[in-house]
Amino acid sequence: MTEVRNKQVVLRDYVSGFPKESDMNIVEGTITLKLPEGSDEVLLKNLYLSCDPYMRILMTKVEDPDFFSNYKPGSPLTGYGVSKVVESGDPDYKKGDLVWGITKWEEFSLIPSSLILFKIEHTDVPLSYYTGILGMPGVTAYAGFFEVGSPKKGENVFVSAASGAVGQLVGQFAKLNDCYVVGSAGSKDKVDLLKNKLGFDEAFNYKEETDLNATLKRYFPEGIDIYFENVGGKTLDAVLLNMRVHGRIPICGMISQYNLTQPEGVTNLANLIFKRVRMEGFMVTEYYHLYPKFLEFVLPHIREGKIVYVEDIAEGLENGPTALVGLFSGRNVGKQVLVVARD
Amino acid sequence: MTEVRNKQVVLRDYVSGFPKESDMNIVEGTITLKLPEGSDEVLLKNLYLSCDPYMRILMTKVEDPDFFSNYKPGSPLTGYGVSKVVESGDPDYKKGDLVWGITKWEEFSLIPSSLILFKIEHTDVPLSYYTGILGMPGVTAYAGFFEVGSPKKGENVFVSAASGAVGQLVGQFAKLNDCYVVGSAGSKDKVDLLKNKLGFDEAFNYKEETDLNATLKRYFPEGIDIYFENVGGKTLDAVLLNMRVHGRIPICGMISQYNLTQPEGVTNLANLIFKRVRMEGFMVTEYYHLYPKFLEFVLPHIREGKIVYVEDIAEGLENGPTALVGLFSGRNVGKQVLVVARD
Repeated sequence: MTEVRNKQVVLRDYVSGFPKESDMNIVEGTITLKLPEGSDEVLLKNLYLSCDPYMRILMTKVEDPDFFSNYKPGSPLTGYGVSKVVESGDPDYKKGDLVWGITKWEEFSLIPSSLILFKIEHTDVPLSYYTGILGMPGVTAYAGFFEVGSPKKGENVFVSAASGAVGQLVGQFAKLNDCYVVGSAGSKDKVDLLKNKLGFDEAFNYKEETDLNATLKRYFPEGIDIYFENVGGKTLDAVLLNMRVHGRIPICGMISQYNLTQPEGVTNLANLIFKRVRMEGFMVTEYYHLYPKFLEFVLPHIREGKIVYVEDIAEGLENGPTALVGLFSGRNVGKQVLVVARD
Repeated sequence: MTEVRNKQVVLRDYVSGFPKESDMNIVEGTITLKLPEGSDEVLLKNLYLSCDPYMRILMTKVEDPDFFSNYKPGSPLTGYGVSKVVESGDPDYKKGDLVWGITKWEEFSLIPSSLILFKIEHTDVPLSYYTGILGMPGVTAYAGFFEVGSPKKGENVFVSAASGAVGQLVGQFAKLNDCYVVGSAGSKDKVDLLKNKLGFDEAFNYKEETDLNATLKRYFPEGIDIYFENVGGKTLDAVLLNMRVHGRIPICGMISQYNLTQPEGVTNLANLIFKRVRMEGFMVTEYYHLYPKFLEFVLPHIREGKIVYVEDIAEGLENGPTALVGLFSGRNVGKQVLVVARD
């Protein structure tokens, strides 16, 4: 039996308010690199872990049993990741397969194979992309923009958290769809990235704008057809004053609200009536059936350089808490990836 | 030339806050009961005028030119009404025709025929119904519930302002669709009406509930599939905590917010994501093409007594301001109609 070290990122206790690095512990356990006798589970070596805003929600103690199940203090975090199969009790997977899906924040994980979402078939692109453009955030942007947003050519699109894992893709998808696209982000560097690398028509730093309503009127004198909602709160409230008739608001996330004990009040919802706007929450988990179609769409664009993807890479599981917490102050520039091992 | 008295309800000035009777003047003018030479307009005798919550919105001074055009101080209000054609310059209408559509709050109106929506063909039902169940509120309830709400048999439906012009119909349509229906209203009498006359499964007086979230959990232990939104504010916020996965919120109105200078903040919008809820504003004006189909559906139900309609009738144009203002304190029980003349 080969027993090896298995470093883990463990939630210390339920979190309220902004998460801190100290809300998580780095724990050094061990794991036997052998499937238990008769197990149908899969033993994974985790390579790349994905830092995603929704993880904050799972850190909150929630009573509602309808709610997706949250993290348990004392256990490692779970999340999306790219892993290599070490041993498999499920005939669908074999040693050496690369997969992406839900795994645990540790070096090696023994998990039910049902948590694996897809086998990785294309390795001519960076493996880490399967935590981003070729993984959950990619399908999120694709389904949210095309399925929920129902874009028409030439429409006016606004994306918040625009340089993030999902936002940077929504903007590029919108440009491929001949839309006019404006993004908001929280620093000058991100704004530069949006305009100079990611092909947004315009971008602004929301932290420097004192009147978001006026800002949006400047960038969208004729109004917004699609607002791809990642942040909630004040931005949403200003957007509601600037939607066009029959506009759509796919709600992907509301990162500005996740750390607030009392979320901000949104006051301009009556505009949904006046402008006959559809606002719709969605979750990527209901769209994974589109993954093959999505890959067919996105892989050629990546290979031809027509879609680019910006990653922010943190090295080493022990830097996981910092990387994860950084999402909520906007420290990351682009998709926040955590490298556990490169192969 | 027959010159006759033409009493009018005139807006005194733009309104902020709750409207008062004194925001309107009763003005006695005169009108010549003869079309001007060569006019293609229509001269109407107004019979029944409709008091509708949206009219409050038109009393506010609004700068946005995209907005629907608001009332002008010094001019009579406009609104839905049932009228009789006195003389017509449009060959589609002739003397004696009964019509419903947009008219002015006065005894006689000279209007472009384009403001007439439909000729009234069925007069075996009360004429006043064409301001309610057979008019704008009827199409609103029908389109909002069936088209925007996409109901399935057996779903759980919650209706606010449930005894109002639209709400009472939504509830009855939902019952015809085998749904479980709960309504909220603002008095014991209205609650009795909902349960004993309008066929709601349950109803409650929201003014007597101290914790709307708990109230909704009591009536909807499994959550709400469709919330037909008429009021906004606190009710919406509590509903958001009680929506079921893939729920729908057709937004018809937000009457609780129209009189507030600063609307209430809605804090639970993130639940739209967790429960993948669609919230959609709509306006009846985009659904009038359904009117013939709607009449075919609703007339037999009225004649067979399977759908009932509760009206609150005010007599005389001079009582118009009181009737209209009463909507915002919930004084009316059922559809508020104003009788100008009976034929």
